[in-house]
Amino acid sequence: MSKNFNIAILGCGTVGSGVAKILLDLDHDLHLRAQKKIVLKKIVDLFPSKSAQQYQLPLNLFCGGGKDLTKEEASAFTKEILEDKEIDLVVETIGGTSDYLFNVMISALKNGKHLVTANKAMLAERGEEIFNTAIENNVSLGYEASVCGAIPIIKAIRESFTGDKVLEISGIMNGTSNYILSKMKEDGLSFDEALSMAQKAGYAEADPTLDISGGDAAHKLTILLRLAFGAQVKYDHLYKEGINSLTKDDLDLANEMNCTLKLICFAKQTNQKIYAAVRPMMVKNENILSKVNGATNCVEILNQYSGKHHFVGKGAGSLETASSIVGDIIFAARYDKQITNIPEEVSFELADADSVVLPYNITFVTEDYPGITGLVTTAIGRQQINIDTVSHNRHTPEKSKAVFSIATMPCSLSQIKKAIADIKASAPGIMKEEPKIIPILN
Amino acid sequence: MSKNFNIAILGCGTVGSGVAKILLDLDHDLHLRAQKKIVLKKIVDLFPSKSAQQYQLPLNLFCGGGKDLTKEEASAFTKEILEDKEIDLVVETIGGTSDYLFNVMISALKNGKHLVTANKAMLAERGEEIFNTAIENNVSLGYEASVCGAIPIIKAIRESFTGDKVLEISGIMNGTSNYILSKMKEDGLSFDEALSMAQKAGYAEADPTLDISGGDAAHKLTILLRLAFGAQVKYDHLYKEGINSLTKDDLDLANEMNCTLKLICFAKQTNQKIYAAVRPMMVKNENILSKVNGATNCVEILNQYSGKHHFVGKGAGSLETASSIVGDIIFAARYDKQITNIPEEVSFELADADSVVLPYNITFVTEDYPGITGLVTTAIGRQQINIDTVSHNRHTPEKSKAVFSIATMPCSLSQIKKAIADIKASAPGIMKEEPKIIPILN
Repeated sequence: MSKNFNIAILGCGTVGSGVAKILLDLDHDLHLRAQKKIVLKKIVDLFPSKSAQQYQLPLNLFCGGGKDLTKEEASAFTKEILEDKEIDLVVETIGGTSDYLFNVMISALKNGKHLVTANKAMLAERGEEIFNTAIENNVSLGYEASVCGAIPIIKAIRESFTGDKVLEISGIMNGTSNYILSKMKEDGLSFDEALSMAQKAGYAEADPTLDISGGDAAHKLTILLRLAFGAQVKYDHLYKEGINSLTKDDLDLANEMNCTLKLICFAKQTNQKIYAAVRPMMVKNENILSKVNGATNCVEILNQYSGKHHFVGKGAGSLETASSIVGDIIFAARYDKQITNIPEEVSFELADADSVVLPYNITFVTEDYPGITGLVTTAIGRQQINIDTVSHNRHTPEKSKAVFSIATMPCSLSQIKKAIADIKASAPGIMKEEPKIIPILN
Repeated sequence: MSKNFNIAILGCGTVGSGVAKILLDLDHDLHLRAQKKIVLKKIVDLFPSKSAQQYQLPLNLFCGGGKDLTKEEASAFTKEILEDKEIDLVVETIGGTSDYLFNVMISALKNGKHLVTANKAMLAERGEEIFNTAIENNVSLGYEASVCGAIPIIKAIRESFTGDKVLEISGIMNGTSNYILSKMKEDGLSFDEALSMAQKAGYAEADPTLDISGGDAAHKLTILLRLAFGAQVKYDHLYKEGINSLTKDDLDLANEMNCTLKLICFAKQTNQKIYAAVRPMMVKNENILSKVNGATNCVEILNQYSGKHHFVGKGAGSLETASSIVGDIIFAARYDKQITNIPEEVSFELADADSVVLPYNITFVTEDYPGITGLVTTAIGRQQINIDTVSHNRHTPEKSKAVFSIATMPCSLSQIKKAIADIKASAPGIMKEEPKIIPILN
């Protein structure tokens, strides 16, 4: 057994305090697993007595001895830690994308310390320099906790799937959205009703925008794009469409097509480009993703040689996320060298959405008269699109509206757009609403 | 980039040839990932021209230049490889538990070579000395491919869940059995009909004993017990019950209880002991395991801090299994040090099945008269067992038989045995068959 491996935790909120608890609880096991004694040396937090409460952490671990700190004091203690040669690894569980925190992370790496973080926003929005700094300084950057909490998807791609090539990623990576969609489907609630239930149950924040708009999921997808494809995609460039416009009718139509609507992080390698989007997709009910309900997360990876994999687990939570961070600490302690992903040489660009070949579901709202199905399906056929299924037509006679879905075989969005333009041109005015086009996930 | 990392493959059948193919196909990517050039130097196989065919492997990679070898020649080439200082890692894809192969594996490790193997039978039945030899010689033993083919469960436990404690393992780890049970459920086939269909589809061997008896699954569970709990359980001591006695009626009754019958590898830590068994269990339909059909495998891990995880993927196949082996090669090349699991200090013993607390399903076949349900349920209550559900009673008037299932809340098998003895004593002769007792998995 070699020398101690010393840890400092910056930010002791929900996740940080979980890390401290596990480090103290599993002390003996961690020593065996790392073949080094893992010592929690210091915690910096503005409100130690409050932070220590949930897991009864000893106050003497906190810089300042347990008294509340001003920002200046916290900042001074942090600086001390960054310069302390005894500290081998810094856990960053402060959160946010501030310049202050960015500089703290960079400085930890430049000072030769391993860095472990759950900060998906920072890695997605300002990750490039952080990853590069880790590589340059030959220290490890652990970020298992930043994508889907407890699910070990980062190490699966980085350490296990190294004898393969990732072709596609499809994931349910936002628990709040999945909880809302599950409640809408199971209990027949509207979006607003389900959202308010999610807020009462503690699964959604008072301001749920980042979750339901797809922003939080897009942070995670950005990180996976870099890891799996070496694609340095800018978070702002990623297509994001949330779940707030989905209705009970959409869920019903999906159900009739033997599918379930889910907010999906999707990425697919296609002709040396990557198509990537966060958006509602219709998941076929045979796919495990369709069965993942509530706040649970699931990542599907399609590999060239080993085929489809599903990873299902808790995407959030104090100890759940903390356990991933402690796993990263042990990895760094064991191998004690640069473990940051080495990017693939090919740096992929984003593919144009119109060119990507996928099966799609198109929901039409048209005038209702005999021959309407024939008119629409014939126009689709003219674009060389094969039709898989046509749904039951929800005639609404009082409004003389026809509502029906058509599921296609794989085709491009541009083919579909041409078919729709063709219908509009040949029968002006029959479309009562713009058709809803949703990709299908097999 | 440092020096080359040289590989030899012993045995070039279904899996070995897949390894060679991936090493050649991904050459450039593997170089980047390992930060070393991975060079496939030599393959030993008795029938090179046959083995090379499927993936068009170059014959000059085979020892002997491509001509068929006698056993003596193959053995001489193997000895050369084991003594060749240039070879960094040996892939063992011969299979079986012969003394010859055991000595080859031990000798590779003693000569300072990393060893990667898919040989679950060898690791389960004679693993102790192999693991210890790897540790003593500071080389890595990669065995990701030995448990559930492509599913990265070994590294998940060894490298990712190191910030946690495994409490329970429940897995569908035998594709043949799962295919048979899926067909019985979906298509209403008998066991024999489903088995013959599995044989025709290539999912079952001509002699399917090892698969349907639970023996193959028990090999995998033995390996996981060592990894997750540090438990050195002898394969022969593991309880194994296959699926060959399951009937359509059993599947129907399970379905009525909102469960699906699956062959499960189960292990649970309980009072510093391990309960472990391979046996049919009734999996609640809310559990992902119940949805895993056909030849697909699924491993559920329940951890202390991060809760439940499911890993779903291909459990067998040439390239699927080979991709796991190549992943182990890259891991050894990257970290180039001892990565064999360090056993937990507590070496668990097997718990007595009678003492383990689980929910159970008991199927009774009794005389059919008014009051029979009351008699049975009252006797169960007297043993302090709470009843969860009682199934619909399949009265068979012509034989005056009652057939019904009772699902209990968690209790011990010994409580159930007492209740059954109590029923037999108080109403002798009413049991027409010995009750079937099957654990329920939530």
